Amino acid sequence: MTDVVPWLETEQTPFLLIDQQRFLRNVERLQQRISALGCQLRPHLKTLRSIDAAGYLLPDLSSPATVSTLAEAEAFADAGYSNLLYAVGISANKLSRVRALLERGVQLHILLDSITQAEAVVDYGRNHGVSFSVFIEIDCDDHRGGLPPHSALIGRIAQLLHDNGMIVTGVMSHSGGSYSATTTAEIAQAAAQECAAIRLAAEQIRELGIDCPILSVGSTPTAHFAEDLSNITEVRAGVYTTFDLVMYNLGVCTLSDIAMSVVTTIIGHNAEKNWVLVDAGWMALSRDRGTASQNQDFGYGLVCDRNGVPLDNVCVTKVNQEHGVIALPDSRTVQDFPIGTQLRVLPNHACATAAMHQHYVVETTQHQREIWPRILGW
Amino acid sequence: MTDVVPWLETEQTPFLLIDQQRFLRNVERLQQRISALGCQLRPHLKTLRSIDAAGYLLPDLSSPATVSTLAEAEAFADAGYSNLLYAVGISANKLSRVRALLERGVQLHILLDSITQAEAVVDYGRNHGVSFSVFIEIDCDDHRGGLPPHSALIGRIAQLLHDNGMIVTGVMSHSGGSYSATTTAEIAQAAAQECAAIRLAAEQIRELGIDCPILSVGSTPTAHFAEDLSNITEVRAGVYTTFDLVMYNLGVCTLSDIAMSVVTTIIGHNAEKNWVLVDAGWMALSRDRGTASQNQDFGYGLVCDRNGVPLDNVCVTKVNQEHGVIALPDSRTVQDFPIGTQLRVLPNHACATAAMHQHYVVETTQHQREIWPRILGW
Repeated sequence: MTDVVPWLETEQTPFLLIDQQRFLRNVERLQQRISALGCQLRPHLKTLRSIDAAGYLLPDLSSPATVSTLAEAEAFADAGYSNLLYAVGISANKLSRVRALLERGVQLHILLDSITQAEAVVDYGRNHGVSFSVFIEIDCDDHRGGLPPHSALIGRIAQLLHDNGMIVTGVMSHSGGSYSATTTAEIAQAAAQECAAIRLAAEQIRELGIDCPILSVGSTPTAHFAEDLSNITEVRAGVYTTFDLVMYNLGVCTLSDIAMSVVTTIIGHNAEKNWVLVDAGWMALSRDRGTASQNQDFGYGLVCDRNGVPLDNVCVTKVNQEHGVIALPDSRTVQDFPIGTQLRVLPNHACATAAMHQHYVVETTQHQREIWPRILGW
Repeated sequence: MTDVVPWLETEQTPFLLIDQQRFLRNVERLQQRISALGCQLRPHLKTLRSIDAAGYLLPDLSSPATVSTLAEAEAFADAGYSNLLYAVGISANKLSRVRALLERGVQLHILLDSITQAEAVVDYGRNHGVSFSVFIEIDCDDHRGGLPPHSALIGRIAQLLHDNGMIVTGVMSHSGGSYSATTTAEIAQAAAQECAAIRLAAEQIRELGIDCPILSVGSTPTAHFAEDLSNITEVRAGVYTTFDLVMYNLGVCTLSDIAMSVVTTIIGHNAEKNWVLVDAGWMALSRDRGTASQNQDFGYGLVCDRNGVPLDNVCVTKVNQEHGVIALPDSRTVQDFPIGTQLRVLPNHACATAAMHQHYVVETTQHQREIWPRILGW
């Protein structure tokens, strides 16, 4: 085990640390997997929202990418990226920002799943002479938004868009249900179900004589366990770059794949209760309790020593705004955790933890310090 | 009911809205209450972390205030505020930033509850010729950090600091336990207990011939139900400026006192499930589930119509990063919630929701638009 690099010990806590070596390994792993299945990645950039990180995920500026806000779309467009899917259902009030990006030459695809939205897009497009590129959202597992793959509305929406000069670029589903799988076989099954749904939806549109060139599926779990991506154009995944404890519980990664941690300093003890207090509360860790419903509940995160080695059964058990409480297991005492010592906390949900930070401290493969700013807001 | 002001309808959603009229009423209410009890407020600025908001809370630049990070201390010092308590246990690695503020003429008080921290403060102070102003943290309800009020360590720490040229400015407790009260009588009881603890702790220090001029207590619930503040110097409270659903459940405020909401747009329906989808997920609302353990669970927030009128029993029931799901009660259908319509969501926990935003949109008392930036980071 390498000792902690000196600059890390003087960094002001709490801060979010990215291990670049693990990050690059995770990126490479999924790229190779999806390539080997004859498909292409459209990475979801919402986890880190970082221009620096995107450089490792996207082979070139026209590589497909996914975003969750128009703020990301605008920032990635400023950085030169030109093929972006805004994967949240569009509302009419956002179309002027979409139009501005299109006019800059960015292929920004929008998403919808209702006649009402399609009408709003058509109205705005015709009034402003814009031909929007649209994905229709398909619900593959009764999870969130989208139309069931057999719904007659899919064809009606595609026809409405097509007849009015809009482009039906693709169909898209998100296998959110895969997050509640209890075995990797269930994840593979969710992947098969997602692909079947999206093939069926595209078929309906193509039967109308409308192109629908892109079939887009994805979620980090299904991307890692899909077995057959035939006829699927692209796979979306986001949290795979850093992974987290939810993904560990799902069997998608090991603990030593997790490339994100929050570095914190011990600021107090309650010896009677066997509690250690740290300077990372929910402001630094987030309030996410994603592992609460899984086979192993890590509280607000699994604690590692200052070198990043996980401490068995030591979790952040309670958080306030700037305080974390680690209620120690009986096998340990507060004397093992001297005041002033650094610890690292692995996140339940990397997207939620990253969202609490304005930048990330990166330990590069050469153990140097880099700062990756986060794109903020909407 | 006034109709929604036109500029609010064109603001890009999601965004955090502050109702300045309610905000000012809440501020005035607690100022008057604490004055009437012969005491003084030291507002906790961590909820909004806003220079603009602070102007309404602090009568002048030397008024006492509380912060939860050194980033706040530095930003409020830049704005001219000069009497700040950093109310999180100090660690040695932060002392150089504290020193820099002291050298700028800011009275920045630090907090500790162990001999180890006191020794670190003394060491640093002697090495750099700095006399730190210290509060000792007292645990009044077995909740988080601090020493029990009868602990002999209180005197030992005070003596150690005093003998080595540091200033024992005060004792401080936070009645975190009041958040789990089920009646306002229990809150009043928690307030009495907190005051008793802090008086006892100060007594121990004064018996050593050490001044200890400030007796600081507080939490928003106890601040509103304390009956006797005799011998107490100051009361700290933070979330009282906007309140939230946790405070409503505790009986500290009414729904129409809540001055913070997240404005969101309806982006989809799932008619079969009776679900409405909105563009505010946990990125805008936070993952806080503070009402889950209270008498009324509001999910991820109580939904109001576009004018801010609460809709009985309509809550955000599930959140993803940029999606909120409102599973409607049987009494309502998705037709009552047209796609494209704005809604407002009252927060469970105002501190957590505000933390997800980089600025707040303020509807002033004159219904004009103001932007209050938030101080970010640590």
